[in-house]
Amino acid sequence: MTVRVGVIGAGWIGQDHIRRLTDTVAGAEVTAVTDIDSARAAESAARAGARVCADGAGLIAADDVDAVLVTSWGPTHAEHVLNAIAAGKPVFCEKPLATTVEDCLRIIEAESAYGRRLVQVGFMRRYDAGYRQMKQVIDSGRVGEPLVVHCAHRNPTVPESYISEMAALDSAVHEIDVLRWLLDDEIVSTQVVVGRSTSRRFAYLKDPQIMLFETAKGVRIDLEMFVNCQYGYDIQCEIVAEEGLVRLPDPASVAVRTAGRHSTEILQAWVGRFTDAFDTEFREWIASVEAGTEPTGPSAWDGYAATVISNATVEALTSGRIVDTGMKPRPAFYSGGAVAVDVQPAA
Amino acid sequence: MTVRVGVIGAGWIGQDHIRRLTDTVAGAEVTAVTDIDSARAAESAARAGARVCADGAGLIAADDVDAVLVTSWGPTHAEHVLNAIAAGKPVFCEKPLATTVEDCLRIIEAESAYGRRLVQVGFMRRYDAGYRQMKQVIDSGRVGEPLVVHCAHRNPTVPESYISEMAALDSAVHEIDVLRWLLDDEIVSTQVVVGRSTSRRFAYLKDPQIMLFETAKGVRIDLEMFVNCQYGYDIQCEIVAEEGLVRLPDPASVAVRTAGRHSTEILQAWVGRFTDAFDTEFREWIASVEAGTEPTGPSAWDGYAATVISNATVEALTSGRIVDTGMKPRPAFYSGGAVAVDVQPAA
Amino acid sequence: MTVRVGVIGAGWIGQDHIRRLTDTVAGAEVTAVTDIDSARAAESAARAGARVCADGAGLIAADDVDAVLVTSWGPTHAEHVLNAIAAGKPVFCEKPLATTVEDCLRIIEAESAYGRRLVQVGFMRRYDAGYRQMKQVIDSGRVGEPLVVHCAHRNPTVPESYISEMAALDSAVHEIDVLRWLLDDEIVSTQVVVGRSTSRRFAYLKDPQIMLFETAKGVRIDLEMFVNCQYGYDIQCEIVAEEGLVRLPDPASVAVRTAGRHSTEILQAWVGRFTDAFDTEFREWIASVEAGTEPTGPSAWDGYAATVISNATVEALTSGRIVDTGMKPRPAFYSGGAVAVDVQPAA
Amino acid sequence: MTVRVGVIGAGWIGQDHIRRLTDTVAGAEVTAVTDIDSARAAESAARAGARVCADGAGLIAADDVDAVLVTSWGPTHAEHVLNAIAAGKPVFCEKPLATTVEDCLRIIEAESAYGRRLVQVGFMRRYDAGYRQMKQVIDSGRVGEPLVVHCAHRNPTVPESYISEMAALDSAVHEIDVLRWLLDDEIVSTQVVVGRSTSRRFAYLKDPQIMLFETAKGVRIDLEMFVNCQYGYDIQCEIVAEEGLVRLPDPASVAVRTAGRHSTEILQAWVGRFTDAFDTEFREWIASVEAGTEPTGPSAWDGYAATVISNATVEALTSGRIVDTGMKPRPAFYSGGAVAVDVQPAA
Repeated sequence: MTVRVGVIGAGWIGQDHIRRLTDTVAGAEVTAVTDIDSARAAESAARAGARVCADGAGLIAADDVDAVLVTSWGPTHAEHVLNAIAAGKPVFCEKPLATTVEDCLRIIEAESAYGRRLVQVGFMRRYDAGYRQMKQVIDSGRVGEPLVVHCAHRNPTVPESYISEMAALDSAVHEIDVLRWLLDDEIVSTQVVVGRSTSRRFAYLKDPQIMLFETAKGVRIDLEMFVNCQYGYDIQCEIVAEEGLVRLPDPASVAVRTAGRHSTEILQAWVGRFTDAFDTEFREWIASVEAGTEPTGPSAWDGYAATVISNATVEALTSGRIVDTGMKPRPAFYSGGAVAVDVQPAA
Repeated sequence: MTVRVGVIGAGWIGQDHIRRLTDTVAGAEVTAVTDIDSARAAESAARAGARVCADGAGLIAADDVDAVLVTSWGPTHAEHVLNAIAAGKPVFCEKPLATTVEDCLRIIEAESAYGRRLVQVGFMRRYDAGYRQMKQVIDSGRVGEPLVVHCAHRNPTVPESYISEMAALDSAVHEIDVLRWLLDDEIVSTQVVVGRSTSRRFAYLKDPQIMLFETAKGVRIDLEMFVNCQYGYDIQCEIVAEEGLVRLPDPASVAVRTAGRHSTEILQAWVGRFTDAFDTEFREWIASVEAGTEPTGPSAWDGYAATVISNATVEALTSGRIVDTGMKPRPAFYSGGAVAVDVQPAA
Repeated sequence: MTVRVGVIGAGWIGQDHIRRLTDTVAGAEVTAVTDIDSARAAESAARAGARVCADGAGLIAADDVDAVLVTSWGPTHAEHVLNAIAAGKPVFCEKPLATTVEDCLRIIEAESAYGRRLVQVGFMRRYDAGYRQMKQVIDSGRVGEPLVVHCAHRNPTVPESYISEMAALDSAVHEIDVLRWLLDDEIVSTQVVVGRSTSRRFAYLKDPQIMLFETAKGVRIDLEMFVNCQYGYDIQCEIVAEEGLVRLPDPASVAVRTAGRHSTEILQAWVGRFTDAFDTEFREWIASVEAGTEPTGPSAWDGYAATVISNATVEALTSGRIVDTGMKPRPAFYSGGAVAVDVQPAA
Repeated sequence: MTVRVGVIGAGWIGQDHIRRLTDTVAGAEVTAVTDIDSARAAESAARAGARVCADGAGLIAADDVDAVLVTSWGPTHAEHVLNAIAAGKPVFCEKPLATTVEDCLRIIEAESAYGRRLVQVGFMRRYDAGYRQMKQVIDSGRVGEPLVVHCAHRNPTVPESYISEMAALDSAVHEIDVLRWLLDDEIVSTQVVVGRSTSRRFAYLKDPQIMLFETAKGVRIDLEMFVNCQYGYDIQCEIVAEEGLVRLPDPASVAVRTAGRHSTEILQAWVGRFTDAFDTEFREWIASVEAGTEPTGPSAWDGYAATVISNATVEALTSGRIVDTGMKPRPAFYSGGAVAVDVQPAA
């Protein structure tokens, strides 16, 4: 049986996922596409052999749509996800789940009321082979309990539209999700340390930023966010535990020796870095839809957590203070997920 | 349009490819399966939602078979490939193309007479990301003209059925193909040096063997074949050229520090090492079938070369002498392929 | 001409340096030894072919002592260094220069009054080949201006006598010195973040500690101090700059592949890690004494800075606050040294 | 007690060793120097505070010479070494021990007649930390019995005076010695395979050359000698054994990430690569002289073996044939050395 997917939002990432579902992921086809720009919708639909829908609500309701993919503009996510839940259809929502904490909570409430999980949020790092190996090592107990995590997230450059808050909201949100999952722990406070900024940036941007997170279990995380590092796209993660450490590998690359240097190539964009993760993410999602089981990827609760924690990190950046994330305690409905630590309600 | 594949041979590798075409490669489906063991054929067909054919000839002729995959016992390959050519259907043949040089030449003759390429041979290393990066470096001229190549091909163990000749015929044949492609050159002589064998082997097996190849351009290749190395499955390749060298990377793997060691994991089987290469190989083959174009992978000529060179290497092992491979000059029909160097006829 | 060295303090490190000056460093001999434990002094002196002096003052005054090495208990350092300055003799003082800021300042005052540098402080990392390469890269401008530094300082275990304050005073003091030198910059504030401590420690010890330093130029440094990491002695340092980064290498070590792992050994003690650095440190110091020139190593000012900054870090640990180091502006007398940035007087 | 060394030959390597004995190795001084060029002798002697001797014989006989260092032109080595043996003085002879097998045998005979070892030959790789770690791993049995060895010896360029025979005589001789020592085994046959030569060489030079050695125990060694590799000085060695392998490390070097590349530096000359090995070699030799014990480094027998095997390799290069080295069986006098395998007399 082929899973028929309706896609809301045919921008850059939407088109990439349409191509993925059409050409790369077996067992799926895109049957309907909608976009605020109808020409763009028509073009994407034509390439995929799909039809165009006038709007998201119609697409979600359509008989030839088994599952919904939301890749529209962030502020519209909540409405589409809620509609999909109302229709009882599985929905994959690119991050963020919603741009406000309130909308995240509405989704959680709706999904809980529906009684089974329908929502998966698009945090693809959990599907990266390196992170998965890290999780295996941590979960195996080989290195003991995690104590400290060092991360770096570096982009070669960002466009003029990228402002300081986006380091947390758009970029670090990936680390926030994958660290909660790796550590099976919750982030309870956040701090941002800003020093000298690089001269290779637009003047209004604070870059690099050092983010400091603390988890419920007391793990200390430092994350260097540096989005104009010039030299490449570079993701580093090291978990230091009681008996040892585990470190994310660099992508495999041929070594070249010439002119006095031994060197390997560094990727220049996140696309190449996480292509396989995206493929696996969609393959597993399509498999869960086809099987009629709950999705195993990031849940609406994880989407809520990412929004809460990244918003708190923006507040930390703005205020210069250490900010409690103030996450609510996790409802039992989401207890089967990856993060098992319940956080006490914020005072 | 979905490419409908008929599979001849439902042994271990056949089943793996059936699963690949069904679950992993978009745009393909397995519609027919045959095997000398009818129960095994039935089981594999059922899993893929395909029907069983009584024999290869019937499967090739069937209307619901657009393309043929040959994964049966090596000595039967030639017959099926020739039937597919006769039927004008694209055929993917797992290595070897044929077990005798004469059969390889019959296939080449038949395909040439047909007038366009229909045959692709299953040498998957050309699809491995690391080897592809190596080829890019070589072809870019960054390190100059190749002069020497060092390879190692190590398996943890082999079963009792593995005899000394299989080091060339079954194992080194992958290096023979990928080196011809990497170097865009032809192997003209071969020698096997055997020293002390490991005590961790069946007594009749010469292991390790050092194979020494010379190419038409004068490149010298040494290849350590060690199929009972105990520690893991390990493929090494380094091309030394006039201005530098390029080396195949190890698969990316998390680094762990514990108990006084910094370590990464070594794979234990070729399956995991080349899974992505297999997927890419079939994705590109299915795409060429769907597009109605000639396959871009290893040709029947490459299959002939692999058989000629691996047979010569067995002779070198047996005789202790340096053996000319005696390859025929490449016909113009195959001139568009990866290997552009024409070899003079053996005297 | 052989430099005749008098050694004050024949404990573990003193004995190691006596052996070094006797067996490893050409052009030096130990002629006199004193220690609070006269038997220990006698034994060390005998091994080096030196005589025993009753006390430091006598040793410093002796005619057969060209230069003084102070390796006694920390609180006694200041007195011996001041005596050496009074005698106009070069003095190498193991860290710390003095245990109080006031004593450091008295030494600076005395040395300045004397009119030329006589004092070198024993921070050996500046002599490590890896750190020296890092400095060359930074100074060359190849990676641009430094922005962020990540460090880790890990010991397998520490004895029961090691208390939380020693992470700054005894251990991190090495990073404090080498970072000031690498960055040619001054540390102006310090913070200590403490999360979950490892269960493999004595209960009163906070371990690991994350130290956060800020420099006068705005560079942000994070330093993981983890002195019971179990797995080995491991020193990491990475400087992230505007155009790239440079990372301290791990010590060269043979790679072994066996039983499914590719691994290298991790050292278990700082002795082996910095043996070459100690040798070079003393070779260069002896050369400066022999040449009659000022020492080129860490100065009394560097010793003062290390004490000020490590004391401030202890205050940060105790208070939980960000603490200004309150370093005085650097006098012109020390302007020729490695650290060129003058810090404004603390308010 | 300081060991007084007389140096015969003040060329480039002689001067380097004079500086080493004077400045770097404790417990030694150079007291006498002779050279065929008396001005050069005078200059070197002056720098070391030594006197000039008219010739080697006089230097060896001198009362103020405890031990002799021979760094003169190769063909003169035998005479000086024989004189030193006659005088009963320890002698360190740079490689080769002698340029003819006959002279090597005369030295062995003379030393055996003297009744204790006086001769050490200057093969410094045994003192390199990486090779020593390799030997520890092999001797520990962790990876089992050696079966295959892969080596590469690459220089960036060689001068016009370098001819094809020197690849064996001057360059590969280091691998010949260190492999005999690492494997505790004897090389019994040698072959040279020459393919395409690099265009970056003088026209008469065969470069690269692949040397193939077989040992008495049946270990197979391939050694790529490439002395115009352009990119750097690069020494590789990997021993493949029954349970795993061990690989020589590259020298530690800072990693730099910039402009899309992660890179480390490759050395450009053997001097930097083996400086520490030279220092250790002389430190241990001086210690043995001072202690009055037999030297523990490469013996006259090792010097004989190196000459026999490198000469046979030249014959293999010239003839294109596999050449038996024809080493004599090792006398009991040299049985305490590193190489324990006795070779049967050549037929």
